[in-house]
Amino acid sequence: MADLNILFTSAGRRVSLLRSFRRALDELALPGSIIAADAGLSAAATFVADEKAQVPRIDHDGYIDALLELCDAKSVRALVSLVDTDLVLLSENAQRFEQLGTTPLVCSAATNRICFDKVSTHAFFTDNDIRTPQVLSDAETEGLSSDDFPVMVKPWDGSGSAGVHVAANAQELAFYRDTTPNAMVQRLVVGDEYTCDAYVDFSGTVRCVVPRRRLETRAGEVSKGLTVRDPVIIDAVTDCVDKLPHAVGCMTVQCFKTRDGSVEFIEVNPRFGGGHPLTIHAGANFPKWILQELTTGQCDASFDCWTDDLVMLRYDAEVITQGSLIR
Amino acid sequence: MADLNILFTSAGRRVSLLRSFRRALDELALPGSIIAADAGLSAAATFVADEKAQVPRIDHDGYIDALLELCDAKSVRALVSLVDTDLVLLSENAQRFEQLGTTPLVCSAATNRICFDKVSTHAFFTDNDIRTPQVLSDAETEGLSSDDFPVMVKPWDGSGSAGVHVAANAQELAFYRDTTPNAMVQRLVVGDEYTCDAYVDFSGTVRCVVPRRRLETRAGEVSKGLTVRDPVIIDAVTDCVDKLPHAVGCMTVQCFKTRDGSVEFIEVNPRFGGGHPLTIHAGANFPKWILQELTTGQCDASFDCWTDDLVMLRYDAEVITQGSLIR
Repeated sequence: MADLNILFTSAGRRVSLLRSFRRALDELALPGSIIAADAGLSAAATFVADEKAQVPRIDHDGYIDALLELCDAKSVRALVSLVDTDLVLLSENAQRFEQLGTTPLVCSAATNRICFDKVSTHAFFTDNDIRTPQVLSDAETEGLSSDDFPVMVKPWDGSGSAGVHVAANAQELAFYRDTTPNAMVQRLVVGDEYTCDAYVDFSGTVRCVVPRRRLETRAGEVSKGLTVRDPVIIDAVTDCVDKLPHAVGCMTVQCFKTRDGSVEFIEVNPRFGGGHPLTIHAGANFPKWILQELTTGQCDASFDCWTDDLVMLRYDAEVITQGSLIR
Repeated sequence: MADLNILFTSAGRRVSLLRSFRRALDELALPGSIIAADAGLSAAATFVADEKAQVPRIDHDGYIDALLELCDAKSVRALVSLVDTDLVLLSENAQRFEQLGTTPLVCSAATNRICFDKVSTHAFFTDNDIRTPQVLSDAETEGLSSDDFPVMVKPWDGSGSAGVHVAANAQELAFYRDTTPNAMVQRLVVGDEYTCDAYVDFSGTVRCVVPRRRLETRAGEVSKGLTVRDPVIIDAVTDCVDKLPHAVGCMTVQCFKTRDGSVEFIEVNPRFGGGHPLTIHAGANFPKWILQELTTGQCDASFDCWTDDLVMLRYDAEVITQGSLIR
């Protein structure tokens, strides 16, 4: 069998995820390398992968060509992106990778476009009867009374929690609308926040959903999370992901469960999220399933293969290296 | 020899630091346990220590008594706090710990009071001819012209980067002054930012300074740092720490080196900082030196024992455990 080399682009700090792919290769006794690419030389994950590569920035014209060249030179079997910003581009160029024998693990361009900006995501939710907090028009925003606060202000093209603010009153709302580029105003949901990892197999079927309750966040990313086997959330997430046109692989779905028991969706990231390691530790081994599908066309995924009530407590670990290697 | 049990309070996410103390015990072939205490049950470091303990919150009346009880029950040889908020209290109660045979690794109450609030720190700097950016009076703040921006707004009793904002203009300044409790306004320094770890031995002598340049931060803490053997910074930090009344152990000094080569001090945290692991990896083994002083009264500390131009790239690692253990 040819080596099962996996290329991760925007590898960044995803050390734990890359190590899980490394373990999955070993567990399945598959020959292959984990290759970590990043635009910078100082991405921690590039120092723990089997091989590293520097690629142009995503907004550089030569980005896709550089990835194609790398996939060809390294006989890459599958390509995984770990940020939002190149997903549309990768899906538009999927055939070029496939011609080289590289499977880009990306959803359809249609799904990536829906997920990438928050206005499109909101339209997708409302068009498909998926509950989501109301986005306010300018007129509705002007008409807010003091009882309507707090509300959310966020850039419609933002990623993660970047630029997201909670406005407690009209003064703060005016300030954040002024200072947030492409601001949209949305009602605040009160409830428990969940990030759900959905596994969609290569035929497009949702095969597993792991809801992770956010217990604590840091810099917009989960720092403490808990697996919760809640059938209401699992069903709602399955329904939501099913309605996306041609999703595949790991879909990371943000939602709230409110006090009245309803599930309100915030956004979908069609890629591995930062908090995904908890899902793998709980037994939902997405990396292994991806490798199984790549090699046999089938995988072990199931809805009940993971451990409920498992906690992830994150902390800072470090890679130490010579300064000359990051310049 | 009695066991060299070390108790860390507010252990939080300090997994790497606690492991370094564990390694130092092993390297010196000292019997002893690393005990991690925290007010919460979900502190990652408590799951990697040899033993864990839950203590009341620092603002609870029973905090000191609970620590004393723990030190007595566990025959604790030394106590190390990893946050700012209990340092004054611990130094005021130092004798009570010493009577039990526990050495609290804290500076004098005078030094802790200087470091704890930013107004006192600023007064200490200016009284001792230590360069620091100007803090503006209300009248000076009102009189700022557009050329004076950006400026810093921060709570004088804040910790780390919590509540610190850069105001780009008069509108933002007014907003942040309104919304920041105990706001102080300070001129912004332009230059390279350094966190310097100074080791002060038990006799009060500065024995080592490791400047770490901040290459990148995340949630106010260093995520990428570089050791820099800069004699100007090392001398300035030594002078600054020397002037504090009875400092001891690890002093974490924040400063900037400006374009004209001067060193401007921002604050001093009289405890191990979050980015300290780089200093240990570089060879300045503060944990080992502390253990040596506790057992022999002497230590290997020196100014030139560490590796220049070494990089730390941090990433999220995780502890996984049962949900029942954090409830």
